Amino acid sequence: MIEYRNVRVALLGAGSVGSQVARLLLEHGDELASRAGAGLELVGIAVRDVDAPRDVDLPKELFTTDAESLILGADIVVELIGGIEPARTLVLQALQSGADVVTGNKALLATHGPELFAVAEQVGAQLYYEAAVAGAIPIIRPLHDSLAGDRIVRIMGIVNGTTNFILDLMDRQGSTFEDALATATELGYAEADPTADVEGYDAAQKAAILASLAFHTSVPLAAVHREGITSVTIEQVRAARKAGYVVKILATAERLTDADGTEGVSARVYPALVPESHPLASVHGAKNAVFVEAEAAGDLMFYGAGAGGVETASAVLGDLVSAARRHVIGGPGVAESTRADLPVFPIGTVRTRYQITLHVTDAPGVLSTVAGVLAKHGVSVETVEQTVATDADGTATLVIGTHLAREFDLASTVVALRNEDVVAEITSVLRVVGA
Amino acid sequence: MIEYRNVRVALLGAGSVGSQVARLLLEHGDELASRAGAGLELVGIAVRDVDAPRDVDLPKELFTTDAESLILGADIVVELIGGIEPARTLVLQALQSGADVVTGNKALLATHGPELFAVAEQVGAQLYYEAAVAGAIPIIRPLHDSLAGDRIVRIMGIVNGTTNFILDLMDRQGSTFEDALATATELGYAEADPTADVEGYDAAQKAAILASLAFHTSVPLAAVHREGITSVTIEQVRAARKAGYVVKILATAERLTDADGTEGVSARVYPALVPESHPLASVHGAKNAVFVEAEAAGDLMFYGAGAGGVETASAVLGDLVSAARRHVIGGPGVAESTRADLPVFPIGTVRTRYQITLHVTDAPGVLSTVAGVLAKHGVSVETVEQTVATDADGTATLVIGTHLAREFDLASTVVALRNEDVVAEITSVLRVVGA
Repeated sequence: MIEYRNVRVALLGAGSVGSQVARLLLEHGDELASRAGAGLELVGIAVRDVDAPRDVDLPKELFTTDAESLILGADIVVELIGGIEPARTLVLQALQSGADVVTGNKALLATHGPELFAVAEQVGAQLYYEAAVAGAIPIIRPLHDSLAGDRIVRIMGIVNGTTNFILDLMDRQGSTFEDALATATELGYAEADPTADVEGYDAAQKAAILASLAFHTSVPLAAVHREGITSVTIEQVRAARKAGYVVKILATAERLTDADGTEGVSARVYPALVPESHPLASVHGAKNAVFVEAEAAGDLMFYGAGAGGVETASAVLGDLVSAARRHVIGGPGVAESTRADLPVFPIGTVRTRYQITLHVTDAPGVLSTVAGVLAKHGVSVETVEQTVATDADGTATLVIGTHLAREFDLASTVVALRNEDVVAEITSVLRVVGA
Repeated sequence: MIEYRNVRVALLGAGSVGSQVARLLLEHGDELASRAGAGLELVGIAVRDVDAPRDVDLPKELFTTDAESLILGADIVVELIGGIEPARTLVLQALQSGADVVTGNKALLATHGPELFAVAEQVGAQLYYEAAVAGAIPIIRPLHDSLAGDRIVRIMGIVNGTTNFILDLMDRQGSTFEDALATATELGYAEADPTADVEGYDAAQKAAILASLAFHTSVPLAAVHREGITSVTIEQVRAARKAGYVVKILATAERLTDADGTEGVSARVYPALVPESHPLASVHGAKNAVFVEAEAAGDLMFYGAGAGGVETASAVLGDLVSAARRHVIGGPGVAESTRADLPVFPIGTVRTRYQITLHVTDAPGVLSTVAGVLAKHGVSVETVEQTVATDADGTATLVIGTHLAREFDLASTVVALRNEDVVAEITSVLRVVGA
């Protein structure tokens, strides 16, 4: 039934994802061949140390330390080394040799995506990267193909399982950030050095990739505004829940128009208040979800496992079968040659809503002073709530919800409020989305 | 920038979806051209009555009643007539003329899918049908491409917005089925004759399509077990919520093994109890969602608008851009040539869990009698709850939750229980999923 010669697959890296890809390729070879229309032959696995311990028992003879030679004999190269070098050099070599490349390397794509796509286009090779964002969840292909006839307005993604696990634990068990992080580390959801996750670096890479793909525009990692969750307090999470919100850290990519009417895009990562009724609010534990708002399709959400060796291997193998089909019957991959190249706006341009919690002197005229500051900056108030009549120290607590306004004006408002004598302290500033 | 000649698109039908497809093609032509790599030229719209009123104002000169001539001059034919004839004949003519076809016609695919795919393969044309299941939600392409390297175990879909709207209204507002249906009709969510929706015919067509695609096997519509929601009572919905469940009508496609160890598939539609914590439980109103369980990827969910003219048009245009790309650079469509052709099992083979609610004589030994009936049929009991000590008529109410068992044994158990003297009435039998 299969008449095409085998497609030769070289695997670079045998970590938690790579070893599962190798195992599934070897175990399900016949099934994958029937889907691809050709056999998928694993010709070798390049690793730094052939004798290092692996998650999965794989045939010794497949391993090599000579990645460059392995690449030269392959039709498809699967890069699962991670990080920038040597991954970048090897992927470039693979593309330049005419091989298609499947990668799950978000750091590489977020920093060197344009270079890689340009080389791929030049030589007619394809670069597949479904595994780079949200693990097992099909999101790259739906954005590239299924929504190719629509116009994406905004993407909000829970794309980092570690931080969603931590915020979910704070919300559901009342843990502090520190305790929740300790639990995440204990259970293997957080790494020994959790910086990349809790400071939002990982999510920022994914925001850059999603924004670039959705808006057909190169969005460099440096242009992604980034705030992590280390300063999120249990008081904020509790107050949010009382007001009908859940705190989630979101990677957002948005098409917007600046004050001059110029169309552009924004990519950003920060913790935000999500209404309890919003589909993103019920994404628990280490799960990921990507919420997409499109002009014609309306609201869509893609939900599933965002990490894990075997889960992410599913995305890699889906790309691998697509790449193999292309070898058999030809056709386009995921790369886009024609681009919109919209300007990438700084965070100040974004229109959003703030929820500001402040302690103020409990005296007549305070509310008028505060309202005056907001008005002066062109920010209009949607709700004001005095949550505690008078605190022990003689101050009252105000929670102000704003209407949509430019981030620049909102941030300036917070600075101005901080300088008012009647304002004792600003205890929480969070953005509100999806309401 | 665009160097390829225009791709000629013929549209068949200008109903709620067709008219939006035409509008978006005309309004967003340049953007779609840049995505496809070629201009998409709408060469004509075939309708029964050129002068009929339309949702959208479209250029009169595009309309024709001569579908056959229109097809002959087209590279891609978009079929949005619906129903079997003349859609089937026109789609076959289009494929035989070498044109690619984009369709949203679930009835046609569920009944004549194998014939259409065979003709397409024979002539090397492609058949795209993202819009046929779950409207705007990308599900066909993720199943076909993104999960091509995985093994799907089960799909459970809320794929009919009308019935989800009705069940959601019963759950959230305590409406009876009749009142909820009346509201759905009033708001335009249900048609004047709601049979296709409330009896599960529409969902059964989608179950056949999903099962065929997911398991690389032809699943005929006649093999889909179908139960609608007309007999779902408000008491069932209330009792479900009390026990931590929501009643949802699900289209299920499952890979399973029968008693002899033969691997096969099952496709079925019925109302079932979904645990409140399950992602499908929070799909409200007329929204759709498809929950996919795969061996490697784990649990995934795809959520969004399941109907609506402009929403469904998004899925059609995504297919159209993919088809146009294939004209420019070649490549595979959505059809699958190599098939697994697993046997399709009847409902009796499926393993599931029942929740049985019965009124029994409040006398000693009753529970032992009931338990004896279950044991005799090889059904083991997970929970028994006597919800009301003694009802007004001297009977007690028992709610029995079973462990997983074959549908055949469960159904036989219910018949046997009905024949027991101690059983006054069986008031509810519902399957339990996802727990």
